[in-house]
Amino acid sequence: MPHTYEFPRPALTVDCVVFGFDGSGLQVLLVKRGIEPFLGAWALPGGFVRMEENLESAARRELEEETSLREVFLEQLYSFGEPGRDPRGRVVSVAWYALVRPDQHPPKGDTDASDAAWFPIDGLPGLAFDHERILAMALDRLRGKIRYQPVGFELLPKRFTLTQIQALYEAILGRTIDKRNFRKKLLAFDFLIPLEEFTGGAHRPARLHRFDRRKYDALAKRGFLFEL
Amino acid sequence: MPHTYEFPRPALTVDCVVFGFDGSGLQVLLVKRGIEPFLGAWALPGGFVRMEENLESAARRELEEETSLREVFLEQLYSFGEPGRDPRGRVVSVAWYALVRPDQHPPKGDTDASDAAWFPIDGLPGLAFDHERILAMALDRLRGKIRYQPVGFELLPKRFTLTQIQALYEAILGRTIDKRNFRKKLLAFDFLIPLEEFTGGAHRPARLHRFDRRKYDALAKRGFLFEL
Repeated sequence: MPHTYEFPRPALTVDCVVFGFDGSGLQVLLVKRGIEPFLGAWALPGGFVRMEENLESAARRELEEETSLREVFLEQLYSFGEPGRDPRGRVVSVAWYALVRPDQHPPKGDTDASDAAWFPIDGLPGLAFDHERILAMALDRLRGKIRYQPVGFELLPKRFTLTQIQALYEAILGRTIDKRNFRKKLLAFDFLIPLEEFTGGAHRPARLHRFDRRKYDALAKRGFLFEL
Repeated sequence: MPHTYEFPRPALTVDCVVFGFDGSGLQVLLVKRGIEPFLGAWALPGGFVRMEENLESAARRELEEETSLREVFLEQLYSFGEPGRDPRGRVVSVAWYALVRPDQHPPKGDTDASDAAWFPIDGLPGLAFDHERILAMALDRLRGKIRYQPVGFELLPKRFTLTQIQALYEAILGRTIDKRNFRKKLLAFDFLIPLEEFTGGAHRPARLHRFDRRKYDALAKRGFLFEL
């Protein structure tokens, strides 16, 4: 190549914050590190970007290798590059966040990540590197996003109750929401389709709903504010 | 260091999309490349990240070196890493966008960037590398942002007319807006303070306004949707 770079280069990684919803609480998928540094500590799934792959491919490859997750909703979050964030030297990480529906595959570990497991957002272990900071930013992004760009599609099962969608919003916001007010505002958006199906609850069966994808997309495109 | 990386590493750069508003149109600050590749072509200001600086410091340093701009509003946009986006080899770029008020310094060139100049958004030259794609994403971000997070503060002069703020929104959206409807919605947010000062127009002097920072911040925090 006629013009090559002579500068020293940081190493480049990707890290993924994977959110899931189990019907009542928000969860994060973590891997137990199988190599140094931070051997045995929990961390976000991730690893080195290869020279021939783009950044999203690297994130998807690492996610599949370390957790078996495939074809999830994935968006770039932010790039982290403080000198000193990795004890091995200068490492810049492009962070991503993923949203996983309950029907998607459960995690399993590989060699780099000896173990993978879901943790409740309010019961996380200490994390390796600056991964707590990355996770905090991902949660902030998710909190902003549910107000102006509906993300329920990516986290809820295909059929869900109004109680479940409220539980999802409460889990993301980290606080309780007034039920009556929430339902009134939610139904006014008119993107839920009530089904003639009910949960098999012992006492009071609850009606299932699904999203109207067309209305939901049109609303997201036009602009949307869910005042909570 | 006990654990160093043995992998080949992409080079790492920062690039900045700098938006300005001249009172009627949206503008972008570009630099003419003084070195190969793309010698003589217009490009976004940017350059290599040094091993001892963080990503935002690199963006601010390059911006000052190439355009003399300092202390501007700067946010990270997205990281671009398609293999082949730079003819010199694998280069990943962390892109930023900056918003510059009219009272901030005009640009000047340095050695890497032999020339720096503002271009109207609807009259841009062809750009080096994948910088047109980066710019398109920055403009998308700005278009989204003005609907749910007011950004006028960062682009308007300290005192401005309602005609100017409408011109700014029109310039960002790339279309005309109904004046009566725009003013009604804008004033309903109650974050503008009308001043006892007027423009020196020959026929009809227009009232100047300023932002009420406190109300504006509270609104941005609570959530905001400007339906345009």
